[in-house]
Amino acid sequence: MQTVLTHTAGMAFDLKVDGHTIPLDAAPEHGGQDSGPRPKPLLLAALGGCTGMDVASILAKMRQSWTKLEVRVDAELTDEHPRVFRDFTVVFDVEGDVRPDRLQRAVLLSRDQYCGVSAMLKAHAPVIVKVFLNGEELALPAG
Amino acid sequence: MQTVLTHTAGMAFDLKVDGHTIPLDAAPEHGGQDSGPRPKPLLLAALGGCTGMDVASILAKMRQSWTKLEVRVDAELTDEHPRVFRDFTVVFDVEGDVRPDRLQRAVLLSRDQYCGVSAMLKAHAPVIVKVFLNGEELALPAG
Repeated sequence: MQTVLTHTAGMAFDLKVDGHTIPLDAAPEHGGQDSGPRPKPLLLAALGGCTGMDVASILAKMRQSWTKLEVRVDAELTDEHPRVFRDFTVVFDVEGDVRPDRLQRAVLLSRDQYCGVSAMLKAHAPVIVKVFLNGEELALPAG
Repeated sequence: MQTVLTHTAGMAFDLKVDGHTIPLDAAPEHGGQDSGPRPKPLLLAALGGCTGMDVASILAKMRQSWTKLEVRVDAELTDEHPRVFRDFTVVFDVEGDVRPDRLQRAVLLSRDQYCGVSAMLKAHAPVIVKVFLNGEELALPAG
């Protein structure tokens, strides 16, 4: 698996990944022009995308139907340099005709067995997962 | 720091990060339509972008001028599930009127002190850094 980043100007790079090209750039306060996202939150995107695709795939196999499936990933940076994430919080927000036990099972399968990004990031800091179905939080055993 | 991923169809999600929207999708062999990159290589993109921006910024402060600054990040996945990266190899490919000692120093500052993504991923697996200037590899002390 490979990505290639080519410097274009200032702090900006063109990222080539899986045949797609995405601009990355720093914020203006760090010498960039905001022509694309910063690199560090792409770690959060990798985590949310990995576990989100797991859950979408498992729920579809379980023949559940949803009107909303959103994954938010929050993380706080340390003040000391190099600035790293203290922990990762993944919140699933699902709406629709989905059985709570099946959603819980899908999320746990991803958290504990399927999601490689989660497995890698856990080596650095805790990954906390929460799940809401039609506005109500479902209980999950500790990871 | 937050990212939000909204399921759109099949395995596809819209990723919102730093005010930019990027589609993510699985490959057709995994039920997707390749409307965007996969999540897992975004880890490599985060690593390459983080260290690439460090080096671009440091070289600019050192008043070096380059015609090419490319960062490739390669990583091999395990066969066992969850599939994780065994290690990360970052290759800088620089061309132009750049002093070798300054390029070495810029790369080492990022590798050892500045790049938070590298610091986080090192908790999981080794991060190997190589640097080429005008086609010749520069020696770096072990990280």
